[in-house]
Amino acid sequence: MKPYVLGIDIGGTNTVFGIVDARGTVIASSSIKTAKHANIEDYIEELYTEVTRLLTTNDAVDKINGIGVGAPNANYYTGNIEHAANLNWEGTIPLAAMLEEKFNIPVAITNDANAAAIGEMTYGAARGLKDFIMITLGTGVGSGIVVNGQLVYGHDGFAGELGHLIVKRNNGRACGCGRTGCLEAYCSATGVARTAREFLEIRTEPSLLRNIPIAQITSKDVYDAAMQGDQIAKDIFDYTGTILGEAFADMTVFTSPQAFILFGGLAKSGELLLKPLRAAMDRNMMTVFKGKPKVLLSELKEADAAVLGASALGWEVKPIEQA
Amino acid sequence: MKPYVLGIDIGGTNTVFGIVDARGTVIASSSIKTAKHANIEDYIEELYTEVTRLLTTNDAVDKINGIGVGAPNANYYTGNIEHAANLNWEGTIPLAAMLEEKFNIPVAITNDANAAAIGEMTYGAARGLKDFIMITLGTGVGSGIVVNGQLVYGHDGFAGELGHLIVKRNNGRACGCGRTGCLEAYCSATGVARTAREFLEIRTEPSLLRNIPIAQITSKDVYDAAMQGDQIAKDIFDYTGTILGEAFADMTVFTSPQAFILFGGLAKSGELLLKPLRAAMDRNMMTVFKGKPKVLLSELKEADAAVLGASALGWEVKPIEQA
Repeated sequence: MKPYVLGIDIGGTNTVFGIVDARGTVIASSSIKTAKHANIEDYIEELYTEVTRLLTTNDAVDKINGIGVGAPNANYYTGNIEHAANLNWEGTIPLAAMLEEKFNIPVAITNDANAAAIGEMTYGAARGLKDFIMITLGTGVGSGIVVNGQLVYGHDGFAGELGHLIVKRNNGRACGCGRTGCLEAYCSATGVARTAREFLEIRTEPSLLRNIPIAQITSKDVYDAAMQGDQIAKDIFDYTGTILGEAFADMTVFTSPQAFILFGGLAKSGELLLKPLRAAMDRNMMTVFKGKPKVLLSELKEADAAVLGASALGWEVKPIEQA
Repeated sequence: MKPYVLGIDIGGTNTVFGIVDARGTVIASSSIKTAKHANIEDYIEELYTEVTRLLTTNDAVDKINGIGVGAPNANYYTGNIEHAANLNWEGTIPLAAMLEEKFNIPVAITNDANAAAIGEMTYGAARGLKDFIMITLGTGVGSGIVVNGQLVYGHDGFAGELGHLIVKRNNGRACGCGRTGCLEAYCSATGVARTAREFLEIRTEPSLLRNIPIAQITSKDVYDAAMQGDQIAKDIFDYTGTILGEAFADMTVFTSPQAFILFGGLAKSGELLLKPLRAAMDRNMMTVFKGKPKVLLSELKEADAAVLGASALGWEVKPIEQA
């Protein structure tokens, strides 16, 4: 096995890539603008040029075991990106095949949350865990489910959309997925901001949050206010953590994980979120599972996490079959 | 590999066991009373005597590859039965080890719903499926989850308690598990009878069900009335199927199964249950999964299913290590 892998994280704005060793050290990294290229061929051309430059500078040419890619709507089975709303390229893009042909290195792709789960299992808080659920709390809520040491892809490659569990069956908030009441509509950064607007409308007490134009309040503003002791802001975190903890209790009857691992902006809220979360989990947990699943925070550095997660797939690739 | 397996299904009242061949034919079967023995050693003694009699009569001594056992609260990993409420034996019973010592044949045990899933995968409607969810609709609601061809046991052996997903977060019905609002409290045979009592209390129209003392109504009575065109009885099935379909849509975002396979008394209600179930699944399904998971009925004969399911584990056992 060659000594390095290449991790590529494709976001709507930037594509970040890095050379990673077996211990999870990012040897070197760089980035290009994803959005610059309306055409996928042009994008791959620039990516190839810049990756080659990085490999050459770091004496890593011919030392890459595999390329792992994290991208929105990426399907591990087919190697395709399918109708990703945040990317310029329409329809189905055979990304793994295109990259493999260009680089002549085996490529595996998956979505961002699955990549995060594999990264955590390979280098982070989930080392040694065979059953856990990765939850990414960002603009949306993503998830990667690991059962018996293997990522759950489902029969079509799209399993693990736990941000779209229904947590409010009636009169739930509209979700980006077109339905209502999804976990993501409550427990993402956007969800927290929506809760802030709701609470400020309904309640009459003074709050630091009233100093901000209501449409512009972010989850960071709510965090800052809560840290200054603002009651409404603290209640918003209680509300968010409670819904998340109830959902974790439900997820536990499914795969009985050893741990939930949190990653993303909201995960940095610490006890503001974790205290109500753990309390709600415990209150709602089926007896046989009580006290068993832990809630852990990601151990990957935020700046490196996306590249590390993607790169971990590069250890699992199969060699390219020679024709 | 030897030509037969032995399946043992331990219920609260009866223990049924049978010799099964590789094609899923039950060569011969028999039973003993579980409840007769307050003492586990006495129970195993009688089981051994009767199994040996069956094996001898059918020329199957020394032809058993493994013994598979389905039992309440049976833990695949530890081989123990742990605090099973429906069995006489208290505490933790090392059942697999005790049977293995007595029979000198390798033994694997799991709970009834997991055994049903393995049986369906080995001999029934799930042959060739790698991702499916088995749902047993009996007195309770049980489940066995298969991901990538493997049963999901979770880190503690107790995964797959989908009957205890919360389907009604507030003011839900009390459940046997000590919580409220579980799927099982609505979509089991008992749940249907409870819905009948609720509907008959709330509504005023005439109904065939009013001819039965309200405390004695069973799901079978509701089925019979619905088949005669009784509106309240039909509405009860609509209500049940809708809740089950909503839950199936939620389960789909978890493991993206190819199929849900239904087994048990209520599954025999046919379109009365399946029509509202499929409609609710479709209405609540996240777009990416729409139209993908099928709802199938078990293909195992009811009389044989429990023994067949348990027996299938007998093909997976590891040989006993000789000291």
